Amino acid sequence: MREPTRRITLLTDFGTSDGYAAAMHGVLADRAPSVPVIDATHDIPPGDVIAGAAALARYWDVFPAGTVHVGVVDPGVGGQRRAIVLESDGRIGVAPDNGLLEPMLARAGECRRIANPDLYRDPVSNTFHGRDIFAPVAAYLAAGGLIDRVGPLLDDPFRLPTPPVVLAGGTIDGSIVHIDHFGNLVTNIPADRVRAGSIAWHRDRDLGPLRTTYADVEPGEIVVLVGSSGFVEISARDASAAAILDIERGAKIRLAER
Amino acid sequence: MREPTRRITLLTDFGTSDGYAAAMHGVLADRAPSVPVIDATHDIPPGDVIAGAAALARYWDVFPAGTVHVGVVDPGVGGQRRAIVLESDGRIGVAPDNGLLEPMLARAGECRRIANPDLYRDPVSNTFHGRDIFAPVAAYLAAGGLIDRVGPLLDDPFRLPTPPVVLAGGTIDGSIVHIDHFGNLVTNIPADRVRAGSIAWHRDRDLGPLRTTYADVEPGEIVVLVGSSGFVEISARDASAAAILDIERGAKIRLAER
Amino acid sequence: MREPTRRITLLTDFGTSDGYAAAMHGVLADRAPSVPVIDATHDIPPGDVIAGAAALARYWDVFPAGTVHVGVVDPGVGGQRRAIVLESDGRIGVAPDNGLLEPMLARAGECRRIANPDLYRDPVSNTFHGRDIFAPVAAYLAAGGLIDRVGPLLDDPFRLPTPPVVLAGGTIDGSIVHIDHFGNLVTNIPADRVRAGSIAWHRDRDLGPLRTTYADVEPGEIVVLVGSSGFVEISARDASAAAILDIERGAKIRLAER
Repeated sequence: MREPTRRITLLTDFGTSDGYAAAMHGVLADRAPSVPVIDATHDIPPGDVIAGAAALARYWDVFPAGTVHVGVVDPGVGGQRRAIVLESDGRIGVAPDNGLLEPMLARAGECRRIANPDLYRDPVSNTFHGRDIFAPVAAYLAAGGLIDRVGPLLDDPFRLPTPPVVLAGGTIDGSIVHIDHFGNLVTNIPADRVRAGSIAWHRDRDLGPLRTTYADVEPGEIVVLVGSSGFVEISARDASAAAILDIERGAKIRLAER
Repeated sequence: MREPTRRITLLTDFGTSDGYAAAMHGVLADRAPSVPVIDATHDIPPGDVIAGAAALARYWDVFPAGTVHVGVVDPGVGGQRRAIVLESDGRIGVAPDNGLLEPMLARAGECRRIANPDLYRDPVSNTFHGRDIFAPVAAYLAAGGLIDRVGPLLDDPFRLPTPPVVLAGGTIDGSIVHIDHFGNLVTNIPADRVRAGSIAWHRDRDLGPLRTTYADVEPGEIVVLVGSSGFVEISARDASAAAILDIERGAKIRLAER
Repeated sequence: MREPTRRITLLTDFGTSDGYAAAMHGVLADRAPSVPVIDATHDIPPGDVIAGAAALARYWDVFPAGTVHVGVVDPGVGGQRRAIVLESDGRIGVAPDNGLLEPMLARAGECRRIANPDLYRDPVSNTFHGRDIFAPVAAYLAAGGLIDRVGPLLDDPFRLPTPPVVLAGGTIDGSIVHIDHFGNLVTNIPADRVRAGSIAWHRDRDLGPLRTTYADVEPGEIVVLVGSSGFVEISARDASAAAILDIERGAKIRLAER
């Protein structure tokens, strides 16, 4: 018999200095007092749903089954956007219906629209659904609540446009989909699709061959390798590839056989 | 019967990168090992008691009764300033006597001066009462200690000057008391005092009528609405009102009938 | 009988916004679900092992015996650098063998090389040992695992060069070893070695005598005092000494009898 594994994680763009994230903790402390709560991050850039989705995907299934992952990057709060609960791989996501759960929506999973005011704080503000809707719903689910009581099935959740990955001949074309804290440029190119000996290109700039580890190059040099989530990354040893290459999210990257 | 709800929250201006906040956690882990501890924030701007008080007030009573809220924004550490414990609404605050608990002092509550060295770490440094006094006292209280053992009643805690709210004729005058992470300008004007159809002004600048939600304006536009704590806020949809309007904390705001 | 005190702390240079720190939490939630985990910090400057070591030392022994302290500032990940487990004072450190545990290595303690793949996640990435090696090993130890199963004894862990402290005649020479969030300049000069009435100098600049507390000077003025870890610090009241003096880490400081 295992110890219980239910817990709640929080991802927001609130920062911490205003007490908004702490207010979500307060709701959880009140309504699910025995469930550990982990601050995944409150430092998603304001309103950057794409960055939030990338971060959430990095830890979603590292947590054990039963975990409730809450995400609140919510520029549309108070407007017409819907809110959703998603069950996938035994983990549960609670978030606005704006693509924040995109990587998990892309897999199998049951998606429901949050539509049960009995579960909310009363009254619900027009600017802070993290405190008034998402935290209470997460507490309800973490305390063992039934997902079908949250709301009806939703078959058309909002899907975030995702840049294509195209294989043709000896090349594979993709994009930078995330730039991390260290300036690593994370692509959407799955490493297991790349042929041995391929060279990475940004337009006509040769970024070098796919290598194994940072130590394969000298400090300050660009190194292309397989990142920790299984996608090709363009990094720099002990330095920021984003700063060296001056490349932004969305830039096209090609891996080509030599 | 409810599960136990006692827990401790921490608010400081320490940042996290020096290990000061972690040292407070260490004291709590040692002295109240079974009490969950929540990092409300360590990102209050250094020495900014007003910002700390605003943040603390935002989550004080969202937490359940029995919570011990610790606040350490303490430019006067080691000098003559006193330290206090405040009980209000069933929550307990532990902080320097410099106004950090102002919003709670403004309500009913019992205030005591911290004056029992038996509860402190030994020795007490002159620069880090967060570790040596506030955390140990919080651990003592969270573990069920008696508040009257902390020190004698204090009937003249330091009161933070709070800007006035003035109603006259069809207008209500207040101030920006907090600027949040998103650039929202939070006023001290209670929304329930504002007449329907009022227009917000900063000096002779018309900021528009009181609206319901961000979606009532176009992206990038200023929107005046009721914030999540019940006060009028001046925001911008998907943008920073503080940056657009170039207004600082303390600026005067008027709501006037059309 | 005491309540159990085992817990895990995390110190990294990951930031939180990419989900890397959360992924470490996920591993711990999966493998040591009943052990509380404390985020000491994720804000060590990228790759700054010296700053990480200073922060870790500040809270290492404030936590109770049995605590597992994880540190991941790891520019050499994936290369030849080893990884270690250190037991000292009843606390356990888990980190790369790059000096991050230097202050604890300087004391007595048993050091082992991490070398048991049975404890790791499978597969182990080349870029994220925090998730794949350090967190799983910490979970194993926090759950009561035997330290000698982690790997063999290591008698030559990497030692971080530490700047000297030299006593001669009426003077003591040391260095700034850390600059904190407030701009306090922390030296490596133990306060108990400094003679009463000594004056602090940076080159030929008189920084004033050793004082007791910030309140001994006017706001904005430099004050030399004993910091909370027992070393001489150069601070400024309600201001940043680092900004005022334009001094960087490594600068020489002398305390001299008047």
